[in-house]
Amino acid sequence: GRVLQTVLRAILDGFIRQPVRIVPVAFAAGILAATGLLMLPVAQADPGSTRFVDALFTATSAIAVTGLVTVDTPTHWSGFGEAVILGCMQLGGLGIMTTAAFLGMLVSRKLRLRSKLMTQAELHPSISLGDVRSVLRFAMLFTLVVEGTFAAILALRFHFAYDLGAGEATWHGVFHSVAAFNNAGFALYSDSIIGFATDPWISLPLAFGTVLGGLGIPVVYELLRRRSQLTWSLHTKMTLAGTAVLLFGGWLVLLALEWSNPGTFGQFAWHERFLPAFFQSAVLRTSGFNSIDVGQLNDDSLLVSMVLMFIGGGSASTAGGIKVTTFFMLMLVIWAEIRGERDASAFRRSLPMPVVREALTVALVYLALNVVAVMLMQRFEPDIMLAPIMFEVVSAAATVGQSTGITYDLGDPSKWLLAIVMYGGRIGPVLFATSLAMATRKRLYRYPETRPLVG
Amino acid sequence: GRVLQTVLRAILDGFIRQPVRIVPVAFAAGILAATGLLMLPVAQADPGSTRFVDALFTATSAIAVTGLVTVDTPTHWSGFGEAVILGCMQLGGLGIMTTAAFLGMLVSRKLRLRSKLMTQAELHPSISLGDVRSVLRFAMLFTLVVEGTFAAILALRFHFAYDLGAGEATWHGVFHSVAAFNNAGFALYSDSIIGFATDPWISLPLAFGTVLGGLGIPVVYELLRRRSQLTWSLHTKMTLAGTAVLLFGGWLVLLALEWSNPGTFGQFAWHERFLPAFFQSAVLRTSGFNSIDVGQLNDDSLLVSMVLMFIGGGSASTAGGIKVTTFFMLMLVIWAEIRGERDASAFRRSLPMPVVREALTVALVYLALNVVAVMLMQRFEPDIMLAPIMFEVVSAAATVGQSTGITYDLGDPSKWLLAIVMYGGRIGPVLFATSLAMATRKRLYRYPETRPLVG
Ligand SMILES: [K+]
Ligand SMILES: [K+]
Repeated sequence: GRVLQTVLRAILDGFIRQPVRIVPVAFAAGILAATGLLMLPVAQADPGSTRFVDALFTATSAIAVTGLVTVDTPTHWSGFGEAVILGCMQLGGLGIMTTAAFLGMLVSRKLRLRSKLMTQAELHPSISLGDVRSVLRFAMLFTLVVEGTFAAILALRFHFAYDLGAGEATWHGVFHSVAAFNNAGFALYSDSIIGFATDPWISLPLAFGTVLGGLGIPVVYELLRRRSQLTWSLHTKMTLAGTAVLLFGGWLVLLALEWSNPGTFGQFAWHERFLPAFFQSAVLRTSGFNSIDVGQLNDDSLLVSMVLMFIGGGSASTAGGIKVTTFFMLMLVIWAEIRGERDASAFRRSLPMPVVREALTVALVYLALNVVAVMLMQRFEPDIMLAPIMFEVVSAAATVGQSTGITYDLGDPSKWLLAIVMYGGRIGPVLFATSLAMATRKRLYRYPETRPLVG
Repeated sequence: GRVLQTVLRAILDGFIRQPVRIVPVAFAAGILAATGLLMLPVAQADPGSTRFVDALFTATSAIAVTGLVTVDTPTHWSGFGEAVILGCMQLGGLGIMTTAAFLGMLVSRKLRLRSKLMTQAELHPSISLGDVRSVLRFAMLFTLVVEGTFAAILALRFHFAYDLGAGEATWHGVFHSVAAFNNAGFALYSDSIIGFATDPWISLPLAFGTVLGGLGIPVVYELLRRRSQLTWSLHTKMTLAGTAVLLFGGWLVLLALEWSNPGTFGQFAWHERFLPAFFQSAVLRTSGFNSIDVGQLNDDSLLVSMVLMFIGGGSASTAGGIKVTTFFMLMLVIWAEIRGERDASAFRRSLPMPVVREALTVALVYLALNVVAVMLMQRFEPDIMLAPIMFEVVSAAATVGQSTGITYDLGDPSKWLLAIVMYGGRIGPVLFATSLAMATRKRLYRYPETRPLVG
């Protein structure tokens, strides 16, 4: 007991002091271990063992809860291999959710310390083992309840409507429920969820599992603990409102752009088009299942999709991207500027300039890294057009996992590149935002202000 | 005298009170008049008259100093037609430079008034006829000197090295010098400047004419009037430093990306590749000539080019884009944030937050409009790939005028779209930035600040 607690305390202290070092190492270690497991002959359906680059890609994709694959999940892997993937998705999702939640706690405590002490200098914020226990317990309980509920619904449906035996139906229910809640997008069907495009009993649990997993621990905690809307934090209100806007906006726009595309929604009767469009909007920003062929989307839909993937889901959730609050803060600044307001505000609270600067920095640096990755991948894959390359890179960076279908055909350099992009896209934004917020402001004097021309 | 002065004063008052209405109308009127002139049978080389949409496109392209063309300039137009284009480029360039300079004066006077009177309420800044006269005189003199000098160099070179007669050499010298200084990119050769790629006597005058035209009236004025660097404004310093960084950075990056591309720089001996790469970097952000085949650039170079075009040149110049200072302000904010500094600063001056918010707003709204235009054009041209469509739209919006070669083959809806994009891209950013800066801040109370999570 004592020894374990001392060890845990030491790890926690290391995390608190240098999250920007501990987190990347922890995720990398997990990826390497999973790569090793996936390279075991027992992990493969056919005899032999998986190539290192494909095992690494799959492990990274699962732990970074992305869902891109270079080998076909149901045919390539054995039951053991699929179980490894399931474990990776679960640990990866739980890991990033709780890590980001702890980092959020650290930042808010640091800022509280700072506001109390004008000369804060060397005081460091802290997280106790009790905090860790309660956040972990909450996250695990929430995960278990949501995944259990949707796994049960899915399993029943697989059993009764698709004639899967009890064991297989349960396995499929659990696997896809975990994949949905952790926004990991792996599927036990070669064509993802396309076979269930018009079945609400399959696609709605996956869609809502995705959305719930993508809200984030701080939001869910408040929703469950505080009954009255009046006591919700700005972060919760912005995340909920932003998610609703993106969910319904994406639904309508995709429906309009793809209404008569025979390759996508146009293949269904008109009244059957709403469900797959809603599904696409729900999973597109984060979980990466697909119930239509993404490669058949027209280029306009691909562009809209890239924007939505880039935005992603809620902070401290299993979703990726720059996050809903980051995006809407920038929109609110622009909106305030256009209306001639002094401050950007939402729900009768104004946004402090430092946090807006952080949002801008995270968004533009993330954008720049996406552009660099696109340029590298264009070098590696001269025969693939710009649109699918952009889509693939954004999908990897935002840990979404949808693909126009080029992933299987990529060369090894592109697989390495995308693995790095998934890894960086998973832990990058939260670590970067944390270190920006934690940075002690240097330079106590200020220069006089001057104004260059704009436009 | 008296009557004229009263009329001018009335026009000026209208401009001061509602620049956002007067400027678009003035530019639209100029475009319509030029369209009419270009539709006259005498404007065309062959019998008959030019189609309305092509005349409108050419007139817009010339007045918005872009340089995109749907008909081949040297073969389609008569000498009269070319003279109309020359006039449009000159009036368009002078018009946008001086308009933006006046708007910059208005903004800085408004802000000075505001800082003097805490309760400013209804005081309006003003520009006198004297101001107008002196700015116009300065702009015209500067135009005349630069254009005259480079026209002379070009004419001599055309005459002695390319055997053009004195009259034709003079005409070519004047036309291309005007096109360069006004960043308008029209050329009297069907393949633009490709025939002169390795001739420094042609390409360097065009490159330097472009750069000088793209600095902007306020910068040039300070450079000529204030000998000591110490008295230069932050705007001037940022524009000069930014231009240098973009010019040399673009040179090196393009050289690296295209070094061995046989379709572009790779066709020349190694020591001959530096000149066309420098030329491309100099003209790419604004003037739109090309001395290599843009359609042969690899996709990475196209992406880099789009970024450079998007940035553009100096404020109150003949260049387009969001402008050098707008871009570097955003970079400086990010840099300060990453370094943990309290303010973004340059040259020992900090950037006020309101101007940073304006820069952010101008850049992101401009980006969003580019995306919308790309989506529309993809609808209109289903057979053209994403990369050339993006390049064409950014080139039109930033009034650059380089093209991968698709402009001739566009359908009428795309021509209309690009004409609107050129028109909006020309006057949009400066008017938008002005109205943001001039807006009276409403709402005297402030909400309490709260901080959502980022990343
Ligand atoms: K995913
Ligand atoms: K131009």
